[in-house]
Amino acid sequence: MTQPIDIAVIGATGTVGETLVQILEERDFPVGTLYLLASNESAGSAVSFRGKNLRTREVDEFDFTKVRLAFFAAGPAVTLSFAPRAQAAGCTVIDLSGALPAEQAPAVVPEANPQVLDTLKAPATLHSPSAAAVALAVVLAPLKHLVDLQRVTVTACLAVSAQGREAVSELARQTAELLNARPLEPRFFDRQIAFNLLAQVGPSDEQGHGVLERRLVRELRELLDLPLLKISVTCVQVPVFFGDSYTVSLNASEAVDLAAVNQALDTAPGVELVQDEGDFPTPVGDAVGQDVVYVGRVRGGIDEPQQLDLWLTTDNVRKGAALNAVQLAELLIKDLV
Amino acid sequence: MTQPIDIAVIGATGTVGETLVQILEERDFPVGTLYLLASNESAGSAVSFRGKNLRTREVDEFDFTKVRLAFFAAGPAVTLSFAPRAQAAGCTVIDLSGALPAEQAPAVVPEANPQVLDTLKAPATLHSPSAAAVALAVVLAPLKHLVDLQRVTVTACLAVSAQGREAVSELARQTAELLNARPLEPRFFDRQIAFNLLAQVGPSDEQGHGVLERRLVRELRELLDLPLLKISVTCVQVPVFFGDSYTVSLNASEAVDLAAVNQALDTAPGVELVQDEGDFPTPVGDAVGQDVVYVGRVRGGIDEPQQLDLWLTTDNVRKGAALNAVQLAELLIKDLV
Repeated sequence: MTQPIDIAVIGATGTVGETLVQILEERDFPVGTLYLLASNESAGSAVSFRGKNLRTREVDEFDFTKVRLAFFAAGPAVTLSFAPRAQAAGCTVIDLSGALPAEQAPAVVPEANPQVLDTLKAPATLHSPSAAAVALAVVLAPLKHLVDLQRVTVTACLAVSAQGREAVSELARQTAELLNARPLEPRFFDRQIAFNLLAQVGPSDEQGHGVLERRLVRELRELLDLPLLKISVTCVQVPVFFGDSYTVSLNASEAVDLAAVNQALDTAPGVELVQDEGDFPTPVGDAVGQDVVYVGRVRGGIDEPQQLDLWLTTDNVRKGAALNAVQLAELLIKDLV
Repeated sequence: MTQPIDIAVIGATGTVGETLVQILEERDFPVGTLYLLASNESAGSAVSFRGKNLRTREVDEFDFTKVRLAFFAAGPAVTLSFAPRAQAAGCTVIDLSGALPAEQAPAVVPEANPQVLDTLKAPATLHSPSAAAVALAVVLAPLKHLVDLQRVTVTACLAVSAQGREAVSELARQTAELLNARPLEPRFFDRQIAFNLLAQVGPSDEQGHGVLERRLVRELRELLDLPLLKISVTCVQVPVFFGDSYTVSLNASEAVDLAAVNQALDTAPGVELVQDEGDFPTPVGDAVGQDVVYVGRVRGGIDEPQQLDLWLTTDNVRKGAALNAVQLAELLIKDLV
């Protein structure tokens, strides 16, 4: 049996951090002592683990030599400040913020590129990538050797929960205001999100690409080990609480064998394929709370056999973030932690 | 001055029909007598026009020789039943249902292919295409000679109003039920649409393509006069009442001149370009109630100069349907009706 491991979760009071703690319990991860850490504002609040309420402490005052594994589920600034301390203390670090440079923290999705783990030495630093990259990598990895991918075009319809609890409250509040014919007062978002779509998520650069969009392109190329893959992505904020959805359009160099694609997806780890005619998975009805990426609407192009279109939906907080990080930890504890 | 023309609107009590009547009034269309027609269930209800409440009559009992122009804003079945009667009576027919075959009723969007009107003889039959085709044609037509289009990939995020009043009520009712923690009872949609996305709109064929998706491909090729253009489209039903949005990814054979694209869109008829850095148009905040297609997030590819990405949003009922039909009528009355 694996020895229990002392663990720190930084950002334990956020939506991802809290789910991560819950998944450690659900999957019976060999946790010794669990330290829940947060930045000043959130420290002090309690998170439930194995029937006890654990109080969160200030990350600033934490001695990282107490743990062997640290999950960074806080924002990039917190990761940049404290990950070096954890590394210096000999901790294995799993970063969910994407703040650490790729050459220092390779992105890994167990269903896509687990072979990267073999190249690491303990204590390792890993990057559990964005929810969008996790979802796409889980689905595209089993197709990579079946379809000679030339181009991937993605519209990512992102749930508000990716922006944290405030965004979730804001969607609920705005919706209630509108249904009660009260004047709308946007706070978290800069405009109406209820019954509306926002064409951009987070800041963008001078070329007009969103930070999240560039991140997805970079991470997906790394996860699929296709550094030159052409990827076009638009992130849209949709009025959905939990569960990201993606339309994915793939162009191949040769005709796509749809039967082989369906078979590969049907048996791929981390994928649940919906094949019933006329049916399709939805974020609320299928994805939320589940450990898989749902795939549906698998179809070829209209008049074009080199084309493949898919619809994906997955729990952005769970499968897209917290679960992937725990899956990485499960692989790491075999020999690296 | 143009002679007043006697007009019939079939499907006058639907969302599109009612907006069409309103636009005839707003634009001071030279209407003589206006006959509002509907199928049995809706006949008898009143629609306001020029300060009077006009009662709708049963289309079944209407004598089409009374009018010179008939808008078919009802469903395909009604159009297939009664358009031949209107044509036989010498009426000019503008079909918004898409039921008539393309060789009998060419699709026209005034901003895209007005030259088709020159080829017609009175009385003409025209097809005012789907809202998605109108939006895309208005924006892609001015780019056609600037960008050598190889492929268009579209995710169409469709408002519930495209499905009629019942769908609008259903989104409101489902949302209220969820916010009040009452059990959800889907009626119009077969599942939860509130705070959810549905990966398919309407029925699909054996290859998995939605009827609307095939229709958009067919219509857009016709409107742009690019019969071999590769088009990939996914229609997604989003929890938005009014206003369709589109992510549009274009691949060209050569590097795209972004400055020229912006300039062309800035001066194109029917287009409103949002260029402010970090800003973008939304269905609720910009498109609804307006006569233009809003375009934003104009950007090149990541590492790929032959790529162009756009975000469009437009009032699906108004610009996408009713207004386009009235614009066609305005062009036709110059010499054809």
